Amino acid sequence: VRARFYLPFRDPDSGVAMLPDEEAFHAVRVLRVAAGDEVEVFDGLGGMWRARITQADRRGVGLTLGEPVAPAPELPVDLTLVAAVLKGDKMDDVVRDAAMVGVKAIQPVVTARAETSLAALARGRRGDRWQRVAVASIKQCGRAVLPLVHAPIDVADYWRQTTTGCRIVLVEPSACGGTVALYDVPAATAVELVVGPEGGWDPSELQLAREAGATLASLGGRTLRADAAPLVAVAALLSAWRML
Amino acid sequence: VRARFYLPFRDPDSGVAMLPDEEAFHAVRVLRVAAGDEVEVFDGLGGMWRARITQADRRGVGLTLGEPVAPAPELPVDLTLVAAVLKGDKMDDVVRDAAMVGVKAIQPVVTARAETSLAALARGRRGDRWQRVAVASIKQCGRAVLPLVHAPIDVADYWRQTTTGCRIVLVEPSACGGTVALYDVPAATAVELVVGPEGGWDPSELQLAREAGATLASLGGRTLRADAAPLVAVAALLSAWRML
Repeated sequence: VRARFYLPFRDPDSGVAMLPDEEAFHAVRVLRVAAGDEVEVFDGLGGMWRARITQADRRGVGLTLGEPVAPAPELPVDLTLVAAVLKGDKMDDVVRDAAMVGVKAIQPVVTARAETSLAALARGRRGDRWQRVAVASIKQCGRAVLPLVHAPIDVADYWRQTTTGCRIVLVEPSACGGTVALYDVPAATAVELVVGPEGGWDPSELQLAREAGATLASLGGRTLRADAAPLVAVAALLSAWRML
Repeated sequence: VRARFYLPFRDPDSGVAMLPDEEAFHAVRVLRVAAGDEVEVFDGLGGMWRARITQADRRGVGLTLGEPVAPAPELPVDLTLVAAVLKGDKMDDVVRDAAMVGVKAIQPVVTARAETSLAALARGRRGDRWQRVAVASIKQCGRAVLPLVHAPIDVADYWRQTTTGCRIVLVEPSACGGTVALYDVPAATAVELVVGPEGGWDPSELQLAREAGATLASLGGRTLRADAAPLVAVAALLSAWRML
């Protein structure tokens, strides 16, 4: 497997490009690429090409673009994962897995039972970190489309937003009445799948979800770990819709 | 949530029991239970009860059994995950996730492209470790049935075994012809789902699978991480079968 690098900017006419600083650092210090090496680059918007390294040193990594390469196919659904920010570094795994399985965007939300705040996330520059995790994940899975990791917002503000897609919120089987099995939710072309934190949703949050017209859906009778629930839910939904 | 402990042996008549040594150590040293505490115990075979600690010290942890408790429901399918042993500790995560999502048994297999051997796994007592991981996982997800982690075997020997259930082997989309989408495999009441290692299957292993009558199934076009593929595959299969 060739090493892959994220090349968000390029001059379409010249056929030569320099890797962004962070990608160049990784290429030189970790993967030890050298002039002459064959690699692949992708632009995050669906384009992927072979490329040959022409320069790799402290001044940067240059390359010449070659033939287009077919990336991994994208999902036939515009799927946004709306995920509660979890404790510690667990959100990194959620972002990594969501990017791997094919989501188009990730919206982190801070919930009533979270042990963090928007201010703490901003201080920790967690949004930048999650976007880097998404880049690393799609390098591994072969996608050329980079999922956008939105800036975290309060979940109450999320429910007050308007949306054109269908909204599905995952709830504990015992949480409340009026829930359907996740695999029974009708297929849609655009969907926002909302997955909660370690302690589950606060009743006020479920009320906002109902008022926003979201479908409350449950996923089996076993309690899923909060860091595994988003991947299980996305896989289950896409499989039920025959889109995985 | 009450602390849960694994109590594989008890005297059904007396109503009192001692936790096994490893559970007692965890109860006293980590969770710091004390006489009078209310806990839950499960026998690994489907039974779960409330219990009250009567003794918790260096000689052990004793308890009196109380009312039965309803555990998380079991899957309506007898699902065995046959999983290639991965590098490092990644198999721990595979076992943990499989137990969480409801599999009945886990059969670790050593494959041609593995970086380990049956002898190395035996020296490292990895089988014991995986069974402990399964115990910890079902404590969290509320199951009272402990998935059996079989002793690892060579995957060629696995394919030579006879079985009454249907066998599905997960393959890369590009690996070979004659594959079906995982969500198109007809539902069964007993199934063995076989998931490969980091480097994929060796062609000789796929040949053995074909000769054994296994269904070769693929799961979307994106390359899944080897440690995430078993959870994604189990979730996708169960959701397609409306059993999750």
